[in-house]
Amino acid sequence: MGIKVGVLGAKGRVGQTIVTAVNEATDLELVAEINSGDSLDALVAAGAEVVVDFTTPNAVMGNLEFCIQNGISAVVGTTGFDEERLAQVRSWLSEKDGVGVLIAPNFAISAVLTMVFAKQAARFFESAEIVELHHPNKLDAPSGTAIHTAQGIAQARKEAGMDAQPDATEQSLPGSRGADVEGIPVHAVRMSGMVAHEAVIFGTQGQTLTIKQDSYDRNSFAPGVLVGVRGIAEHPGLVIGLENYLGL
Amino acid sequence: MGIKVGVLGAKGRVGQTIVTAVNEATDLELVAEINSGDSLDALVAAGAEVVVDFTTPNAVMGNLEFCIQNGISAVVGTTGFDEERLAQVRSWLSEKDGVGVLIAPNFAISAVLTMVFAKQAARFFESAEIVELHHPNKLDAPSGTAIHTAQGIAQARKEAGMDAQPDATEQSLPGSRGADVEGIPVHAVRMSGMVAHEAVIFGTQGQTLTIKQDSYDRNSFAPGVLVGVRGIAEHPGLVIGLENYLGL
Amino acid sequence: MGIKVGVLGAKGRVGQTIVTAVNEATDLELVAEINSGDSLDALVAAGAEVVVDFTTPNAVMGNLEFCIQNGISAVVGTTGFDEERLAQVRSWLSEKDGVGVLIAPNFAISAVLTMVFAKQAARFFESAEIVELHHPNKLDAPSGTAIHTAQGIAQARKEAGMDAQPDATEQSLPGSRGADVEGIPVHAVRMSGMVAHEAVIFGTQGQTLTIKQDSYDRNSFAPGVLVGVRGIAEHPGLVIGLENYLGL
Amino acid sequence: MGIKVGVLGAKGRVGQTIVTAVNEATDLELVAEINSGDSLDALVAAGAEVVVDFTTPNAVMGNLEFCIQNGISAVVGTTGFDEERLAQVRSWLSEKDGVGVLIAPNFAISAVLTMVFAKQAARFFESAEIVELHHPNKLDAPSGTAIHTAQGIAQARKEAGMDAQPDATEQSLPGSRGADVEGIPVHAVRMSGMVAHEAVIFGTQGQTLTIKQDSYDRNSFAPGVLVGVRGIAEHPGLVIGLENYLGL
Repeated sequence: MGIKVGVLGAKGRVGQTIVTAVNEATDLELVAEINSGDSLDALVAAGAEVVVDFTTPNAVMGNLEFCIQNGISAVVGTTGFDEERLAQVRSWLSEKDGVGVLIAPNFAISAVLTMVFAKQAARFFESAEIVELHHPNKLDAPSGTAIHTAQGIAQARKEAGMDAQPDATEQSLPGSRGADVEGIPVHAVRMSGMVAHEAVIFGTQGQTLTIKQDSYDRNSFAPGVLVGVRGIAEHPGLVIGLENYLGL
Repeated sequence: MGIKVGVLGAKGRVGQTIVTAVNEATDLELVAEINSGDSLDALVAAGAEVVVDFTTPNAVMGNLEFCIQNGISAVVGTTGFDEERLAQVRSWLSEKDGVGVLIAPNFAISAVLTMVFAKQAARFFESAEIVELHHPNKLDAPSGTAIHTAQGIAQARKEAGMDAQPDATEQSLPGSRGADVEGIPVHAVRMSGMVAHEAVIFGTQGQTLTIKQDSYDRNSFAPGVLVGVRGIAEHPGLVIGLENYLGL
Repeated sequence: MGIKVGVLGAKGRVGQTIVTAVNEATDLELVAEINSGDSLDALVAAGAEVVVDFTTPNAVMGNLEFCIQNGISAVVGTTGFDEERLAQVRSWLSEKDGVGVLIAPNFAISAVLTMVFAKQAARFFESAEIVELHHPNKLDAPSGTAIHTAQGIAQARKEAGMDAQPDATEQSLPGSRGADVEGIPVHAVRMSGMVAHEAVIFGTQGQTLTIKQDSYDRNSFAPGVLVGVRGIAEHPGLVIGLENYLGL
Repeated sequence: MGIKVGVLGAKGRVGQTIVTAVNEATDLELVAEINSGDSLDALVAAGAEVVVDFTTPNAVMGNLEFCIQNGISAVVGTTGFDEERLAQVRSWLSEKDGVGVLIAPNFAISAVLTMVFAKQAARFFESAEIVELHHPNKLDAPSGTAIHTAQGIAQARKEAGMDAQPDATEQSLPGSRGADVEGIPVHAVRMSGMVAHEAVIFGTQGQTLTIKQDSYDRNSFAPGVLVGVRGIAEHPGLVIGLENYLGL
């Protein structure tokens, strides 16, 4: 007997991965698989305590309204949440004690930890740069995760009252020193064979610290989703970002 | 005007590095350099608020007694502290409010952060291994830092109720899977040209997280000593380990 | 118009990958897909110049006899070749000028290059160690590739008359210094999320050289197979090992 | 008894390192240390077979003329050689059979091997990028070595008739994709604590190959100088670049 889990969008590629992950976890029990067109009532009938929603911006608000009203918490990877939607979710939650909703843009636990550790380490090192590496079909450079990580480092440096990074470069080829994201150089490599990788490098006298995240396939979100499912009972209300579930 | 710092053992190799680091820090003021045979009274005359002690097991207890009694806090990298000595330091401190003593076995900030982050990350990954790399003149393998890091990971796994690591190895050459430190494999590389390096690798579905520390020379303790000097006013009493000063 | 290629075992997982790779290569033309039970005559009818054989030890000898007799060269990844079989292949080839057969245990071009470069670099560095990292379902440790790489390094050191590696270790935990493969320490990491990775590290005064190979999925043999297909016209007779096709 | 070596500029920082390296090598014999103002006749008197010249552009031509005329070979790290000077050295050498002169811009054996291997590997991978990392006091970006490495890769790709690298980037921050050196992206990281490091990354289907060079201190030229001293008897005449001594 474990936490009773329902999966929304269960037949999709992401949904299938989550179904497998829940089935393999001995402390979780898969009680419902819901697909587009299915009635959500099956969740109540099955006694689901938590749902995982990787569906569509069109479907997710209806799903959340139903779940919250029925006392079911939700771990949400679906995109498209703006301030208005978040306010709506908070409003629904305000009428239901003990229900939790976790909405996160990134469930890859290694990427989330990289961001958290980078913020923690930032104020101890005068130098900080990011090198992210992805497959060559990626449309944007740098990756959103790398930009977000750089912003977190910049914020931590600012709070600590740190100076600009040391850099004596006088003569350079354009682009060699990377993109400047709030003072943090970010370099993007596009490489056949790679999937998604990010290295955050910090340096100070005589030493460096490197925090590197490698995603080897597209299912790297699953462990983070399970962290959400297991932790949601302790996080009632709306929480944005898996980092808030890590107890760090 | 900044924190007034005295350096004990100022002529030693380590002391010289600390003298330089204090002189270069705009928020610190070097007010006294004390060497073997010098009177400690100069510290009081100079108004030292904090001393840094990288001296000898023979000298350090006398230094600490004097400093504490004169209301001077101390950042200590000297070795040789057993429970008896720590109890003595606590006893002296109990009679002087507001004085702090930081005793740490390792001031390399990148190594300390590696240990802290490794403990934090451990429970999110079913696999964890350590590869440490040092110059070939090192006498012990694995390094004390790597063993300590492995123990921290093992402890975190135990607290989280985790199973043993997955490992289907059936056929192996002796030693290939490393040393077993409380269930965490630790591999030691000894390599000409290298100084001191440690990689902690974590893995779970579709992804890995690597926290890597590189020391490029023997002065990598200096930034951590300054973290101690700057933070000691907020840490009265006896503190063991720089990790307690990092606000993590 | 390009080299006319036939694929044997075309419906298998490996065969499918090769079919796709040949189709995507503008200088190659896929003219035949043969599966178990199909007649090999289709190869002749289609004018195949080269076949790729990733079939079974049972099927491969018949395939080779047919191909050689019909003047078709073969790139072979099928296992199970002993001295007797190799002698038979040589015998068939001796009667057909200009036909080439390439048999290789490893077509991952990055792994093959790692082995070649490791052998070339070995005599310039007094220290050499290997760290290989694989998924935790692997049954053997170290990997065959890592052992083979270590043997190549050991051979190169012996030919250069080099001394044993420097290593002052006096006190060690069992296994920490890796497996000893002819004097080369080899460390095997088993890590959830990883696929197949190998780092060869060389060190000498003030510097190290690291040659690292990462396989991110099980299709990493395809580029090496194409190297074989493109190069076979220039390598008549029997060649063992893709490294002989690299022009190094 | 070994090769008799004279060191020019023996009191300089570089000269001292070479003196130590020659003294520690059992197959080499240090027979003369020459400094500015000393007569070169001591080289002849001592029976020097090879000299190492890390002196100044002002001194080196006189040194070479003397050495060649006296049948002494020379390993030269001094800068300032233009075509005119090289022609002069060739002219002197043309009158003395069996004397060798090696002039090289870079004696760090790990850096030279990185360049050689990068050229060899280039045609097997559709993607190639370079990330170089140096201390923040460096004035130029990217490093000359990284630019030279990129040019070698570009040349090898051109000779193999390869297409441009795959890169679907549509939306990017300026600089994120690095400097474009003849089609090879080069990224320069400037990081406190680091010395000099270069990673060349190659990628193709399902795999990457990384060749990484780390210099940990400023003496990393010494092993390469000894390679030059030991090999010069087999390389009469003028040779530019240590890579020609590596037997690759």
